[in-house]
Amino acid sequence: MKTRVTELLGIETPIVCGGMMRVGTAELAAAASNAGALGVMTALTQPTLEGLRAEIEKCRSLTDKPFAVNLTVGVVTTEINYDDILDVIIDSGVKIVETAGRSPEPFMERLKANGVKVIHKCVAVRHALKAERIGVDIVSIDGFECAGHPGEQDVGGLVLFPAAAQALKIPVLASGGIADGRGLAAALALGCEGINMGSRFMVTKEAPIHEGIKQKIVEMDENQTRLIFRTYKNTARVYRNSVADKVAEIEAEGGDFGMVHHLVSGANQEKAWSTGDIEAGMVTVGMCGGLINDIPSCEDLVKTIVSDARSIISERLAGMIGTA
Amino acid sequence: MKTRVTELLGIETPIVCGGMMRVGTAELAAAASNAGALGVMTALTQPTLEGLRAEIEKCRSLTDKPFAVNLTVGVVTTEINYDDILDVIIDSGVKIVETAGRSPEPFMERLKANGVKVIHKCVAVRHALKAERIGVDIVSIDGFECAGHPGEQDVGGLVLFPAAAQALKIPVLASGGIADGRGLAAALALGCEGINMGSRFMVTKEAPIHEGIKQKIVEMDENQTRLIFRTYKNTARVYRNSVADKVAEIEAEGGDFGMVHHLVSGANQEKAWSTGDIEAGMVTVGMCGGLINDIPSCEDLVKTIVSDARSIISERLAGMIGTA
Repeated sequence: MKTRVTELLGIETPIVCGGMMRVGTAELAAAASNAGALGVMTALTQPTLEGLRAEIEKCRSLTDKPFAVNLTVGVVTTEINYDDILDVIIDSGVKIVETAGRSPEPFMERLKANGVKVIHKCVAVRHALKAERIGVDIVSIDGFECAGHPGEQDVGGLVLFPAAAQALKIPVLASGGIADGRGLAAALALGCEGINMGSRFMVTKEAPIHEGIKQKIVEMDENQTRLIFRTYKNTARVYRNSVADKVAEIEAEGGDFGMVHHLVSGANQEKAWSTGDIEAGMVTVGMCGGLINDIPSCEDLVKTIVSDARSIISERLAGMIGTA
Repeated sequence: MKTRVTELLGIETPIVCGGMMRVGTAELAAAASNAGALGVMTALTQPTLEGLRAEIEKCRSLTDKPFAVNLTVGVVTTEINYDDILDVIIDSGVKIVETAGRSPEPFMERLKANGVKVIHKCVAVRHALKAERIGVDIVSIDGFECAGHPGEQDVGGLVLFPAAAQALKIPVLASGGIADGRGLAAALALGCEGINMGSRFMVTKEAPIHEGIKQKIVEMDENQTRLIFRTYKNTARVYRNSVADKVAEIEAEGGDFGMVHHLVSGANQEKAWSTGDIEAGMVTVGMCGGLINDIPSCEDLVKTIVSDARSIISERLAGMIGTA
């Protein structure tokens, strides 16, 4: 397939593997890239600069194809030295960076000077317009359905994607609520030039998470997520388990973040991810988990999505307009 | 265009004009039907049975094409005698009925015995499956983006449409968040067989609402709606004006429905609709208002949507997969 995104990034299919904390390892990124999508490693998944450098090297050893590094800024903590991380990314010769969280403005000059293409992920058209103004190459726009942080405006992808694609001159990736060839074809119809998928890539053979969690996502339906942290203006979509329900209950009673902190601590999240017990902690997943019914390899996943989108376009849709 | 919905209903385009209280008059329904879509009159917009009978007659005098009557059950009040209304609809020879609110089960036997096709509008896959079981012909599934009542599950159309289309054997209309040819092409790609649009038909020359309201919808962006009545488990999406904000404030303070009743009274709503002052009362509109930029005739609207969807499919999408 060929869109402005595939051309700009030098990839075969307009599919980006979402940048995911703790999931975006070299193995998953390389598998996604080898499948013809854009694999994305997450910088903050590595605890040290040396670890990040080694992980990027590892990814390069596993694939000849383009891959990206995600740099999420300022959401979790301000103790991180992003300039040092950027040094490692640039020195390692990475040519595509996905930014998220705060605006990438402070980094743009260095990124562009080093020939790095920038994909910025954001949740509102006005943030996307700002990203375009400061020289970002591609915007990945996250709708209400997405896993993690959909923002506070709650605009579904069905409306947000065309609104963003229409407002911007640079290409737009549709993110959130997409898990298959139907979603890819729909996103392209809505004016986007490709898709970003997180939850779907979590449920692949190569994703470094416990099989128990993958299986729970296969089993979930579209009603099995919920929003938490709205009262802290840092809304997150997570799997609806007893932990998420407890957080929501504390929020409803006006509890501050300190009161939920132990529930959503890294230690508890780690317990869920490492043991496969989805009730053990907070698990980030989008409502498109309801559309996920198998655990394929990245290669099979990307092949199926592209082949489904192709037949939807050339058979189903063309048939409906009488040109099949 | 040809889909299972156009075949089943005998219409030219897979577009249904949403059943809208106070907006669904004979003039609008006939204009939509004459344009090749399915016009839908709303039974409860007429204050008397005689009025409804006359309005149906009027619609028939204005169009030779199929049109439907919407019957919304049990949401507003239980003082309505639905059997009497059904008598009028059936006696008037109406052959397509759109039901909404409660399940149409009590009416199905009479509707089917009289050769009436039934479109049931609902907000969740499990309700859609029930509708299919009791013999409904088409389900219109309302996603989170829709105007009016999206239900309490908050599943965006991007996920809800394919989930419903996959679960059902009968054809599915995508409803909520769609206002143009991009949305039509996307809905068809997601597995639906057509679209239902309310807000978009509100902003047409023939819609019987004040120009001031139409103009405000043209000017609004995708962030200009909000949900109210969640605490009463009767969530509604409305235009974000001072009335809606006040209702939300009272709800946040734990006020019961009695406390907001005067704000959302029919009299205040009527004031907004009749004077064109969008701050005068509650105005029901969906977030796709952000995608609406003009006030065309129904004929021009339907022509543009179909022509845009056609070129998206045969040029844009076919080009991306290399078959254009």
